[in-house]
This record gives sequence, structure tokens and C-alpha cells, in this order.
Amino acid sequence: MLGNFTYHNPTRLHFGPEALSHLAGELKNYGPRVQLIYGGGSIKKSGLYDQVIAILKEAGKEIFEDPGVMPNPTVEKLYEGCRIARENNVDLLLAVGGGSCCDYAKGVAVSAWCDEDPWKKYYLRMEEPAGRILPVGCVLTMVGTGSEMNGGSVITNHQEKLKIGHVFGPEVFPKFSILNPNYTLTLPKYQMVAGIYDIMSHICEQYFSDTDDTTSDYLMEGLMRSLIHSSRIAVQDPQNYEARSNIMWIATWALNTLVAQGKTTDWMVHMLGQSVGAYTDATHGMTLSAVSLPYYRHILPYGVHQFQKFAVNVWGVDPAGKSDEEVAQAGLAAMEAWMKELDLAMDLKSLGVTQDMLEGIAKGTFVMKGGYKVLSPQEILAVLQESL
Amino acid sequence: MLGNFTYHNPTRLHFGPEALSHLAGELKNYGPRVQLIYGGGSIKKSGLYDQVIAILKEAGKEIFEDPGVMPNPTVEKLYEGCRIARENNVDLLLAVGGGSCCDYAKGVAVSAWCDEDPWKKYYLRMEEPAGRILPVGCVLTMVGTGSEMNGGSVITNHQEKLKIGHVFGPEVFPKFSILNPNYTLTLPKYQMVAGIYDIMSHICEQYFSDTDDTTSDYLMEGLMRSLIHSSRIAVQDPQNYEARSNIMWIATWALNTLVAQGKTTDWMVHMLGQSVGAYTDATHGMTLSAVSLPYYRHILPYGVHQFQKFAVNVWGVDPAGKSDEEVAQAGLAAMEAWMKELDLAMDLKSLGVTQDMLEGIAKGTFVMKGGYKVLSPQEILAVLQESL
Repeated sequence: MLGNFTYHNPTRLHFGPEALSHLAGELKNYGPRVQLIYGGGSIKKSGLYDQVIAILKEAGKEIFEDPGVMPNPTVEKLYEGCRIARENNVDLLLAVGGGSCCDYAKGVAVSAWCDEDPWKKYYLRMEEPAGRILPVGCVLTMVGTGSEMNGGSVITNHQEKLKIGHVFGPEVFPKFSILNPNYTLTLPKYQMVAGIYDIMSHICEQYFSDTDDTTSDYLMEGLMRSLIHSSRIAVQDPQNYEARSNIMWIATWALNTLVAQGKTTDWMVHMLGQSVGAYTDATHGMTLSAVSLPYYRHILPYGVHQFQKFAVNVWGVDPAGKSDEEVAQAGLAAMEAWMKELDLAMDLKSLGVTQDMLEGIAKGTFVMKGGYKVLSPQEILAVLQESL
Repeated sequence: MLGNFTYHNPTRLHFGPEALSHLAGELKNYGPRVQLIYGGGSIKKSGLYDQVIAILKEAGKEIFEDPGVMPNPTVEKLYEGCRIARENNVDLLLAVGGGSCCDYAKGVAVSAWCDEDPWKKYYLRMEEPAGRILPVGCVLTMVGTGSEMNGGSVITNHQEKLKIGHVFGPEVFPKFSILNPNYTLTLPKYQMVAGIYDIMSHICEQYFSDTDDTTSDYLMEGLMRSLIHSSRIAVQDPQNYEARSNIMWIATWALNTLVAQGKTTDWMVHMLGQSVGAYTDATHGMTLSAVSLPYYRHILPYGVHQFQKFAVNVWGVDPAGKSDEEVAQAGLAAMEAWMKELDLAMDLKSLGVTQDMLEGIAKGTFVMKGGYKVLSPQEILAVLQESL
């Protein structure tokens, strides 16, 4: 059922091979001091770094470099970014990279002028931002997180072994994002498929909750069918623009608040995966793929109706002559086969998790309400053991 | 294929039974002079008028009434609205009603401070607005047009026998819209089903173009499946909140620019229907339903692939043992059966069209490119004759 909600997503998206041509126009809306956020050398190798620098200089901007954003941005890096932003009184945070850069930029956006420890305020206590928020722009080079059109910001604290995401409101969303599917074509296959599974997981997290008849479910079924179709083309032919452009667009709409309307969600696969990430620094999408099937098989009995719809409407399972539970199980089997086609991590061992870590990972897993079953600590451990 | 585009939809939507509680907060963003736009007596009968007036007064607003917006807003009414806005120097146009009120409000928004004839500038010459644009807010009481989250504005000139829609950019979109599905429950069944078919037609207009593999197609298939499902519940039980809330939400997403990305479109059913509307003043959705099937059967040979996908993915037609064209035809037959279930107008005669009007209607039909077949004047006339 669609009850009370407010939908507001003001991010302006420039999509396509010519998307970067809009950067100059966007820059006019902000003052001259730009903090340029990026990761390692990939944007220098591809030439994108030089292109962006040229556009910034042409626009008369003063550039404050903030490189070295890691795949799972750390709280130490967050503090460093805040220092750069504050000392230089920057007017715009421009993130050039994947979801990590964009997540990090949003973290800096709310934290730079925050007068207490942002880790405690935003990630441990989950408070809403007060005071000055710096505007964020994004040039996306990797696909999966949806960070380019939402308020999500995941930060990792290795010392406390915690990886926590805060979902901020529209005032923290990127003001603009530049999405050129061609930037994603050079990504190593491992990163590409991890991103694809991240998208799939975002949709599943929202799909597997409630049994109402909600338009959101139909939209998600469409997104999943499109993703499955395009991903099969992309793993065979990573240079296929049509497939990669669809995947980029699906990623945005999988997690920009639209398909969540009317759904209660618990995001338990992400809670499990993030805890694994805090212990191993493994690629985010792979931590999700490794725990998904044991988790879904565990909760299936509590949400048979939706798992059955998933099987028929997303995977084309023929329900004739099968019980509801058999149909539901056949859907997960079809998903498993697809995951193996993509060569995703199917267990935690392959990500470096050892038996002795499981108890800590279980303890670091936030247990959320909103799904079919609130897991007990024993169940969390059992799912992780099954995933090992 | 998803090529170059910019997606930007900044309208803030407040949805659900409590949506009106957000009006006071929205009003704070504007000056004290509010032009209150509405149609006839229905919002007075339902009590909504009194509620809105109370909120406006509580917010200290000065109210300038602009009632009498007709189902197909006329150019004379547009001139009147501009006069009210200009003479009173209003700060906000608040439309309370259906798509007509909202379309009209957007027309006034761009025309009030326009120093030439807005009919000529915006509707005949299709120019973009320059100069001051008044902000629009919307409290929606009818569902179908999607006007609450787009830049569409259809105005009718009875003297010139023209009904023309201009689709303005995001600067003209309503700043906020209040969507309470309960407001739609009291609508007469004729208006409800006409609105449902308007939604279906919006999706079909965008779906039947291109044969690329685009995520937009999958999203539209999801929206159509949800609409068909909910409409069948709503015609049996108009008080069903779940069904009516889904229909309201589908209407918004069917025409807010999302599902158009990657699609070329010709909007020919609307071009035909609008010309019928200029001659008869018939309900918009019914003019669309009356011409749809003859038009689609006419173009089917040029777009068999997409009509076949429509049949299988939207209507569940089993393709086994059928040629592509037979599958495609079976899809339209399924749509026809659904339209009859809803008791839609299936021919133009029932809308008051007579044989002698056909030539004029054909002449008033703008022929657009972007679909499977650019129709010749003879073909337009043939489709209308078939629809009679």
C-alpha cells in the first residue's frame, strides 16, 4: 500500500557520451573554490582527470586536490577531507570516481563545518545534519551504488571494525551528476560484476518486504529483468554501450528512493555485507553476493508469496505443477545460476574470511526490522556460517 | 539505447492520506499573494475548498480566487487567469483540482508576465518561456494527466478548433504537488476510467517507438502491469485505497519524463484525440480510447517486434505456436477486452463525432515523427473513419 511519504529528488543528471559537456554550465552555479575528490590513478590513466582539470581552469576555478579516496572510505580520510574543505573554505565538492568518492564527498559535505566528531554524530548516532552543508557534484566512473542520485554515505572505521551507512535527505544529494557510460567500459571485469550485483542487491533489499500490491514491486521487477538481460550481454561483451548504458541507468533508479515507496525494508544483506567489509576490506558487491543466498533461503519460509512472485515475474519460472515454496526455491536457483554466470563471489572464504572472524562479523552486524523475519544473533551466525 | 539526455525533476511530491498537512510548510516558501485556481463545485462539495482556505488564511495569505477552470481549459480562460495574476501581482499559483487546473496554472505561470499573445508564442509557435515565471503548487483531486510532476500544459482554442499541448521544462514544473488518493475516491466512474485510460495511453505513446533494448521499456511494462491489475480492482471497488493509490502513483510516473528516456515518440494517439477534443469537448481519456485500437492496428505491421513484446510481457499472451504478428494481434485483443471491462468509449460516434466532422478533425491533427510510421493525410482520415 502507498501510504504517507514525500518524494523529492532534485539531482540533475546529465547522461550519455556527451555528458561532460554540461560540467562547465553546472560550475557557474558555485563559487570559485573547488575541492577535487578522486581515488587512485585510474582517472589519470583514462585522461578524464586532465579533461576535468581543463574544464575547471577554463571556468576560472581554484582547485584543491583531495585524492586517495579508497574503495571503502575510512573515517581518517573523512577527517582529512573535512580539513581540506574547511582550511580552504571550498564552495563545491566535485567527486570524480565511483560510489566511494561520491559517498565520501557527501560525508565531507555534512561534516566539514560540523563542530563535533562527525563519525559519532552521523554514523554512530545517526543524527540529521544541522548547519552549513557543502554542495556536491559528481562525475561517475563506476556503477552500482546509486550514490550519484541519493543521500547515502558509507564510512568505515577499521579501528572500531564498523562500516556504517547514513542515508541523508535531499539537501545532501548531489546537486548534479554526470553519467557517461563510456567511462565504465574500461573497468576490470571483477569490479563490473561486483557493481552489477550491488545493483541487484539494492533492488532485492527493497523488493523482499511487504506482500502488498504496490507499484514499486512492478517497477522493481522491470528493473531486475532489464538488469539480468543487460548483464548477460555485458559479461560477454564489456564494450557493449547499449548494455552498459542500461546498467548505469538501472543503478541510479535502483537506489534513489523511488522504488522504496510503500515498502518497509530491513537491508539485512547490506548489514551482513558491511560487517564482512569492515573485517576484510573486500569489494562491497562481492560481500553482498557471498551472503545473499544463505540469507534468502533462510527467510524464504516467512515471505513465500513474494519469493514466488520474484521467481515467476523476474526469472520466468513456470509455476505449473509446483507448490508455492517450490516455485520460490526455483527462483533462487535461477538467481544462483545467473550469479555463477557472472562469476560473483559465492562464499566468504574466497573473500578472505576465516572461521575465527565469524563471531566478530556477527556482532558487527546491525539487525534491522522491516523484513519478513527479525534475525536472532544465533540466526545471524548461522547465515554467516552457511556463507563461509 | 540510452544516448544523451538530461533528467531533472525537482517537483516535491507529498503523497498519502495526510499529504495536505504539508501545504502550510510549502506556503512558507512564497510571498503572501496566492491565486487560487480551481474548477467547479466539486472541491466545495467535498470540503477540500474549505480546508485549503483555512490553511491559506492560517498562513496569512491574501487569496485571489480564479475559479471556473473547465475540463479543457480555453485560451479565453488563460487570458483571464493572466489578468488576475498580473493585476494582483500574485506570488504563487495554487491549483486545486485535476490535470486541467494544473495544466492551466502552468499556462498562466509562463503567460502572466509575457508581453505578447501567449497562445501564439507558446502554443502556436512552441517557443520557450523567457522572463518571469510564476511558481505553481498543486493539490490534485483527479488522476491521469501526470500534470502534477511535469511541464505539460494543454490549452484549447475553440474558435481556431485547435487543442495544443506545450511541454515546458523543469523551471515550469509544479514546485510541489499534494497527492491524496482519498480525494479521487468520489470521482464519477466515467471520469475515473477516462483517467485510467489516459495513463495507459501516456505509457503506450512512449512504449511504441524504437526497438532498442532500453530500461525504459522494462519500467513501462511494470507500470502497465500494475495499472491493469489495479484498474480491475478499482472498477469493481472504487473505494479500494490500495488500488486507487497505485493508480495515482502510476499516473505520475507515466508522464514525468523518466520513461521517455531513450525513446523517440510521436504521441500520435494524443494528436488524434486532441483534435477530436477541439471538435467535441469530449473527455480527454475517452477521445484517446476511441482512436487507439484503429491506430495501433494500422501501425502494427511497422513495429511488430514491440507489439509482440507488449503482448507477452504486459498481457501474458502465450507465444507458443503463433507467428510474431499473431502474438502482436493477440496483445491488442487483450487490451481491447480490458478496455471493454472498464467501459471506455470504443468509438467516436459515442462522443458526438459525426461523419461530416472527420475531415476537419483530420486537418487539425498534427502529424508527428518518431513512431513506426509517419501517417499520410489519407491514413489519418482512414484511422478516424475506422474509429467512428
